[in-house]
Amino acid sequence: MKRTHNNNQLTLANLKETVVLKGWVQKTRNLGGLLFIDLRDRFGITQLVSRPQGPTYETALKLKSEYVIEVQGIVLERESKNKHVPTGDIEIDLVELSILSTSDTPPMIVSNQTDALEETRLKYRYLDLRRPVMQSFLINRHHIVQSIRSTLVDDGFYELETPILGKSTPEGARDYLVPSRLYPGTFYALPQSPQIYKQLFMIAGFEKYFQVARCFRDEDLRADRQPEFTQIDIEASFVDEEDLYDITEKIMRDVFKKVLGLEIKTPFPRMTYKTAIETYGTDKPDTRYGLHLVDYTDQFKDYDIPLFAGKETIRGIKVDDQSIFTRKVIDELSAHVKKHHGDALATLKVNQGALSGSLQKFIGEMTPDALGLEEGNLLFLVPGTFDDVTQSLGALRTQLAEKLSLIDSNRFDFLWVTDWPLLEYDHDEQRFYARHHPFTAPDDPEVLKTSPIHAMAKAYDIVLNGYEIGGGSIRIHDQKTQSLMFETLGLKDEDVRSRFGFFVDALKYGTPPHGGIALGLDRIVMLMTKTDNIKDVIAFPKTQSAKDLMMQAPSDVDQKQLTELKIKAGE
Amino acid sequence: MKRTHNNNQLTLANLKETVVLKGWVQKTRNLGGLLFIDLRDRFGITQLVSRPQGPTYETALKLKSEYVIEVQGIVLERESKNKHVPTGDIEIDLVELSILSTSDTPPMIVSNQTDALEETRLKYRYLDLRRPVMQSFLINRHHIVQSIRSTLVDDGFYELETPILGKSTPEGARDYLVPSRLYPGTFYALPQSPQIYKQLFMIAGFEKYFQVARCFRDEDLRADRQPEFTQIDIEASFVDEEDLYDITEKIMRDVFKKVLGLEIKTPFPRMTYKTAIETYGTDKPDTRYGLHLVDYTDQFKDYDIPLFAGKETIRGIKVDDQSIFTRKVIDELSAHVKKHHGDALATLKVNQGALSGSLQKFIGEMTPDALGLEEGNLLFLVPGTFDDVTQSLGALRTQLAEKLSLIDSNRFDFLWVTDWPLLEYDHDEQRFYARHHPFTAPDDPEVLKTSPIHAMAKAYDIVLNGYEIGGGSIRIHDQKTQSLMFETLGLKDEDVRSRFGFFVDALKYGTPPHGGIALGLDRIVMLMTKTDNIKDVIAFPKTQSAKDLMMQAPSDVDQKQLTELKIKAGE
Repeated sequence: MKRTHNNNQLTLANLKETVVLKGWVQKTRNLGGLLFIDLRDRFGITQLVSRPQGPTYETALKLKSEYVIEVQGIVLERESKNKHVPTGDIEIDLVELSILSTSDTPPMIVSNQTDALEETRLKYRYLDLRRPVMQSFLINRHHIVQSIRSTLVDDGFYELETPILGKSTPEGARDYLVPSRLYPGTFYALPQSPQIYKQLFMIAGFEKYFQVARCFRDEDLRADRQPEFTQIDIEASFVDEEDLYDITEKIMRDVFKKVLGLEIKTPFPRMTYKTAIETYGTDKPDTRYGLHLVDYTDQFKDYDIPLFAGKETIRGIKVDDQSIFTRKVIDELSAHVKKHHGDALATLKVNQGALSGSLQKFIGEMTPDALGLEEGNLLFLVPGTFDDVTQSLGALRTQLAEKLSLIDSNRFDFLWVTDWPLLEYDHDEQRFYARHHPFTAPDDPEVLKTSPIHAMAKAYDIVLNGYEIGGGSIRIHDQKTQSLMFETLGLKDEDVRSRFGFFVDALKYGTPPHGGIALGLDRIVMLMTKTDNIKDVIAFPKTQSAKDLMMQAPSDVDQKQLTELKIKAGE
Repeated sequence: MKRTHNNNQLTLANLKETVVLKGWVQKTRNLGGLLFIDLRDRFGITQLVSRPQGPTYETALKLKSEYVIEVQGIVLERESKNKHVPTGDIEIDLVELSILSTSDTPPMIVSNQTDALEETRLKYRYLDLRRPVMQSFLINRHHIVQSIRSTLVDDGFYELETPILGKSTPEGARDYLVPSRLYPGTFYALPQSPQIYKQLFMIAGFEKYFQVARCFRDEDLRADRQPEFTQIDIEASFVDEEDLYDITEKIMRDVFKKVLGLEIKTPFPRMTYKTAIETYGTDKPDTRYGLHLVDYTDQFKDYDIPLFAGKETIRGIKVDDQSIFTRKVIDELSAHVKKHHGDALATLKVNQGALSGSLQKFIGEMTPDALGLEEGNLLFLVPGTFDDVTQSLGALRTQLAEKLSLIDSNRFDFLWVTDWPLLEYDHDEQRFYARHHPFTAPDDPEVLKTSPIHAMAKAYDIVLNGYEIGGGSIRIHDQKTQSLMFETLGLKDEDVRSRFGFFVDALKYGTPPHGGIALGLDRIVMLMTKTDNIKDVIAFPKTQSAKDLMMQAPSDVDQKQLTELKIKAGE
C-alpha cells in the first residue's frame, strides 16, 4: 500500500477519508479496551485507534515501541483534542494493520527528553537520531546548506569539487595521511582545506568558485572540534574585501530569513583586531553585551600598590550590580582569571560614595569618580602584560556575562573583525607563523620585507555571538610576494620547492587578483539551531578522542592490508 | 574599478557606453599601427583596440598572451564583424589599460585545440582548465549537479553528510587506510560508498536521504576509473523498485532538459539481466544499435564441425554489409574475440544465395534461410561455454558497431537492467560473493537458504549508451535475512561481529523497508558532455597510476609525521 499522508498532515478537513499511514510506534495505551497508538514518522505523530473485536485488535495487542507498521483507517474527530500537535483534532480508526518490522526494547528511549549518557547516544546513534529534536538539527542543517548554496549559485558561483587524496604540506595543523599502495613509502594527505585548489581555480579562470568542502585536521580535539568538519569554501577573482563582505552578508541574510524567518541587519558592524583585543579581550567578541575592558594604568600609576608594581598595564571590567559577587564567587572568578594567564584579580566596590576592597588601603583618597565608577559598581582589575591582561579579562568577561544573565540568546550579533597582523612570532621556535595562512596578502609588501612583525594582512574574520564562524583574505597573486612570504616564514628554498613549488610556478602565468572566505558550517548550524554541542549537528560525529563509538573506528585491519601497503604499524 | 560587463555581453545595443572589462589577453595583433587585443574571461571574448598616440598604447605594446588586465573604454561598432562570437559586432576603444598580472610564456597554448601531451596537461592543470572547452566540462558538471540536487530536494529528500574517516570493512574492493595517531596500530578507512551510513539514516527515520558523496577504491585503475569518484547517493524508506525507478527517471528527465535542452522519454525500457546477457553479451547493453546475439546451437547440432565439437553453445551476430570485412579486419576481430575469452571466431557469408566461408565444407547443403540470413549478410560465430561465448560476442558487437558506424552519438538510450542473480560463485576461492553488495535483498529469502546459486536479487542497474551509470537495490531490513546473507557469503560469526556487528544490531530496533540507488556522477557528466575521457570532467584528476602530476602526490612525508603515527613505511 502507498502512503496517502504523512503523520503531520491530517486534520478535521480530512474527516471520513480512508488513509494509509506508515511509521514507528511511539507508544501504545490501552484505555478501557480501546487501544491507542501514537504513530511517528519524520514529519510528526498521528493517533491511531484499534477497537476490541475489530479486524486489527489482535495485531495491535502485539505492538511495542519502535515497531514499524503500515495502517489503513478512517479519519475521525477525536473526543479529547490535543492542541500541541497539528493532528491533535483527529484520530485514525484502524481497518488494516501490518507489522513491517519488529523491535527489541531499545537501549534508550526515543523522545526529545533523554537521560541517556553521551556514550550510549553515540553508540546507538541511529536511535539517538530518531529523536525529533535530533532530526530537527540535521533537517535544519539540510535547509541551511540549501539556502547558502542557492545564494551562491544565484550570484554566479560555480560549485566545483576538489580532491580528498592530496599532498601533505603541513604548515600549522597536522595532516591525516593515506599510505600509497602503488608507491610504497609515499603518502597522500587529506586536505586541511581546499585552499590551494581554490586558488588554482582562480588561476584557471573560473572567477567564482564555492564548495561544501570536507576538511581534516589531526589535532588534539577540543569540545567544539571534530577530526573532519565541513566548510563553505568560497573564492572569487577581481574582488576586494568589500566584495567578500557583500556576498557573505547576503548568504547570512538569506539563510536566516529562509530557515529561521529572521531579518538580520546588514552590513554587519566592523571592528579592527586591535579594538577587539583592547575592548573585549578576544579576537572574536560577543557583542550582545557590554562589559568592555577599560585601561586604568594611568589612574593607578601614582599609587604604590604592591600587586600592580612594575606591571605593563592595569585593565578592568566594571559591573553595575555587585550583589551576586560573594567572596566565594570572586574566588572562583579569580581562579578563572589565573587559568587564563592573569597575574591576579583585584576588586574595588563603590558603597556609600566610597571605594572599598583589597586595594583600598593603597589608594587613599581616590574617589569612585576618578575610575568612572558609580554607586553600587564593582570593578574587576587585572595587572600584567598586555597579552595576559586582555586574554584573562576576555575570559572573565564571558563569565561575568553569564553570572549577570546579560546574554540574550535570541540575539544574533554578527561582526567583522578586520585589520589583522599578518604574522605572529613564535618565541620558542624563533620563527614567524602566518596568522591566517601563507597565502594571505600583506597590506603592503614593503612592510613585510622591512619589518615583518608590523605587516598587516588583508584578512577578515566573521564572528557571530562570540564564535568565529568564518575567515578569509585577499590572497597574494604575484610570485615575488609569495616567495617573500615563504622566506619570511623561514621555509628553505628546497622546502618551498618540494611542498609548494607547483603553486609558486602557477602564479607566474597570469594570476588574477583574488580572495575568498571559508565559513564553518558546523558552527553556523550549531548557532542557528541553538544547541551548544557541535556533535548534535553532525550525523555521525566522533568523540573528543576521535573515535566512532558506533562503528568502532579506528580499528585493527587485516595483516594482508598492511602487507599490501608495505607498512608496519604500532608501538 | 568594478567590472561593468563580462566579455560575452556587449553588442550594438551598448554603442557609445563607457565600460570596464577584466580578463586574460587571449592574443594581440598589430594591424597598421592599431593594436587589437582579444580579452578573455570565463564568459567569452571581447575585442579591444589601442591606438597609436592614445593613452594606452605604450602599455598595450607590452602585453603578451595570458597577461591579466583591466580596461576602460568606449563601445564602438566594428568595421569587420565576426559572426562567430556574441560580441563580434563591437570593439572597445581603450581609454585606460592596467596590467594586473604578467605571464611567462605558458608551456601550453590556452585554446580549445591543443597538441599538448596528457602529461603536460595534467602537470599544468590550471592552464589546461583555462581552455574554454575544459571550462565548459566543469561548468556543465556544476549545472548537472544543481539540477539533480534540485529534483531530489523538491521531492523531499534531505541532503545529509556522512563521515570520510570510517571503518575498514573490505568486502570486494580494497580500502584506502588512514593510520590513527591516537591509537597506534589502528586505522580509519575511506568509504567505498556511504552504503551502511545511508541505511542507518533509514533506520534513524529520515526516510529520504541523498548526498553528493565522495567514494574511494584502492583498485588498479582502468581508463574510466579514478581512486576517488563522486556518486549521487540516494536512499528511501517504505519504497519498492518502482519508486526508485520513478525518482531516477525524474532526475534524468530534469537534468537532460535543464542542461542539454533535451526531452528524454520516460519510463525507460527495462530488460532482465538474462536477456541482456543473451541478446547483447553484456549486463550493460548499448541499445542504440541492434546486432543482437542469436543462438545457433540447434542449427549446427547435426553437423560434424571440428571447431564446434563438444561446445556448450554456438552463438553469433549477423551484419547486413560484408563489404568492409576484409581478411585483415576479420583477423583483428578474431584476436579481439579471443582476448575476451572466445574460443574462436568463425564466419559465414551469403553470396549469390549460397553460404561460403571457413565452415562451408562442413555444412553441405545448408541454406542461408536455415540461419535466417539474406543476400550480402555476414555471420560471425563463436563456440564455447555460455559465459565465454556471450562475453566475447558482447565485445565483438561493440567493435562491429564502430566499424559499421552504427552508433548515433546524438542518441541517449537509457535502460533498466533488472532481475539480477543475488550471488556469484568464485570457483578459485570456493565461496559466494554478493553481486551488488551484501545488503541487497533477495527476492525470496527461502531460495537464498535452500539454493543460494538460484537466489535472485531485488536489484537494478541503470545503463546509458552502454555505460552503467548507476545501480541499486531494495535492502535487507530484517536481522535474520542479513545474518543468513553473511553466513552464505562464508563470513565467520566473529568476522560479522567485528566488521558489521553494530549494523546487524541496528537492524533489530524497528528497521523500515528501504532501498536506494547510487548514480555515478563522473560518468553521467562524461556522457552528457560527450567527452570520452573521464579526466576531462574532474577538476584535478589522477593518472591511471593514481598520481597527481600537478601536486606530485603521493609524496614523501617528514619522518616526524611517521614517528607520530608510529608507522614504518617502504619496502
